[in-house]
Amino acid sequence: VPLTFPLGGGREFDRIREIARVLGAGAAQLGDDCALVHADGATLALSTDVSVENVHFRTEWLSCTEIGWRAAAGALSDLAAEGAEPIGLLAAVTVPPAARDADVTAIMEGVGGAVTAVGGTVLGGDLSAGGAWSVAVTVIGRASIPVTRAGAQPGDSLWVTGVLGAARAALEAWRRGDVPTAAARAAFAQPTPRIAAGTWLARHGARAMLDLSDGLAGDAAHLAAASRVGLAIALDSLPITADAIAAAGTAGIAPGRFAAEGGEDYELLVALPPAFGQPEADRFRRECGVALTGIGTVEAGQGVRFELGGRALALEGFDHFR
Amino acid sequence: VPLTFPLGGGREFDRIREIARVLGAGAAQLGDDCALVHADGATLALSTDVSVENVHFRTEWLSCTEIGWRAAAGALSDLAAEGAEPIGLLAAVTVPPAARDADVTAIMEGVGGAVTAVGGTVLGGDLSAGGAWSVAVTVIGRASIPVTRAGAQPGDSLWVTGVLGAARAALEAWRRGDVPTAAARAAFAQPTPRIAAGTWLARHGARAMLDLSDGLAGDAAHLAAASRVGLAIALDSLPITADAIAAAGTAGIAPGRFAAEGGEDYELLVALPPAFGQPEADRFRRECGVALTGIGTVEAGQGVRFELGGRALALEGFDHFR
Repeated sequence: VPLTFPLGGGREFDRIREIARVLGAGAAQLGDDCALVHADGATLALSTDVSVENVHFRTEWLSCTEIGWRAAAGALSDLAAEGAEPIGLLAAVTVPPAARDADVTAIMEGVGGAVTAVGGTVLGGDLSAGGAWSVAVTVIGRASIPVTRAGAQPGDSLWVTGVLGAARAALEAWRRGDVPTAAARAAFAQPTPRIAAGTWLARHGARAMLDLSDGLAGDAAHLAAASRVGLAIALDSLPITADAIAAAGTAGIAPGRFAAEGGEDYELLVALPPAFGQPEADRFRRECGVALTGIGTVEAGQGVRFELGGRALALEGFDHFR
Repeated sequence: VPLTFPLGGGREFDRIREIARVLGAGAAQLGDDCALVHADGATLALSTDVSVENVHFRTEWLSCTEIGWRAAAGALSDLAAEGAEPIGLLAAVTVPPAARDADVTAIMEGVGGAVTAVGGTVLGGDLSAGGAWSVAVTVIGRASIPVTRAGAQPGDSLWVTGVLGAARAALEAWRRGDVPTAAARAAFAQPTPRIAAGTWLARHGARAMLDLSDGLAGDAAHLAAASRVGLAIALDSLPITADAIAAAGTAGIAPGRFAAEGGEDYELLVALPPAFGQPEADRFRRECGVALTGIGTVEAGQGVRFELGGRALALEGFDHFR
């Protein structure tokens, strides 16, 4: 039984492919940002996302409130990518031995802050002892016009919301022992799930959409695989933050490559039909308060062709298993 | 803002009380087995439950398939306790460095086995690296007649499904380096969520219900607190497995106490109205294939009075934070 939403490359995705093969009909819709459940007249979108200490964050980098916010925002971003509006979330938190009660409360204040900021509530949770912090967040939302990863068609154009690269800039600053800029730090610590942007795009004809949790390089391959199309992406046209441009210079990497290979931006990648052009993107920006930038096209074929300075470039996605 | 469903004692529950206080209206329905979400005509029940290596299980005790099954069954048990029927679940799994790909697949085979056995599917999931195994399972079901913890009334009778104590018997055998009996091992490794029993009880007037994940001693206090009543429970009347009676003998504890203080039984505790008696319990047993045993009564007041051999007894719940 193949995945309903085929995935791009990477060890995590090989594991998911194998799980889907073994579970067969018992796991029919793995591979999209959200699962869709139809209950009477409503279509509900659900997704789960776990954030683990020393894998996704370090306590030296983030406060407990930020750890909780970031974990919730990452899961809520999957609702945005489906064009869904949040109802709420559940959070299962494992608490290391040295944690104080106030740390646990702060984690959940962050979780609560992220979900109430987009109109949802904390529906439930679970607390357990554990060796390190982990925050597994499951979100549920309403998707009146669900947008999967699977609808892109040759001739569509590709767009991204917001600006890319700031989360990677923060991460690289911490990793070399520096202090990130306030803007880069905020992008990593308190990302904004693009809920209003996602529902706007769903209402305006989005054919396929996902969020850039693992970075454009890896995530674009998932959209291509699920839609059974090829993508051509011009890295020179990516919207990149000043922090990321500076950090790319420090690292000696072209900014377009730096931004495409960095994870955790939680912006949306969306395929829109040919009739969608710059006037519609300008209207999106006015109504959602976020940029929408054309970065490429959908073609017949498969895989993703990245170009930088007129030359083809092979890119690697961001993989927490590496 | 007090919890909608007040909780009994214990450090985990003190933490939940504090989280609910801080989140206020952003977390309005914490404290029940499930959160209820109303979507068009449907009432959906959701719950999340995390199972952590070296806290809830050891890999020396269980196979990967059993670890997955048990984690899923524990979460599904919360649907049973709400009188809900499963739609499916999402599983966020953290994978330790030494794990093989086949272990990850086996965990998810166990998760899938538990949910397909009760008519649901694996809707989604997330994989992450981590220091140890953890499996955070979020379940969603339909609750046409939801039963919370909050409806017990003085004059109701208290009942439990199945037989108690086998999971504790297995746990104590492992802890002293012994091999548990096959029956005790199966009770711990592959518990059966009481879905059919829960929906039967919901249809037959159940006023308040929860599952005995933390053991009768602790969980009965939650039902009393949420319903704002007192409970009187006769430990001599508890249904106890032969393994648990033997293990209680080894430990030098009265079997009723051994069973009430042991967690992980995943049986249901239910308050039923005065008209529900032994004939109805016999019918339950015929239709659900599980015993239903009267163990006490609901009174005006608060807290839980346990009696053993005609004498009052103070009991402690099973707390993973100890």
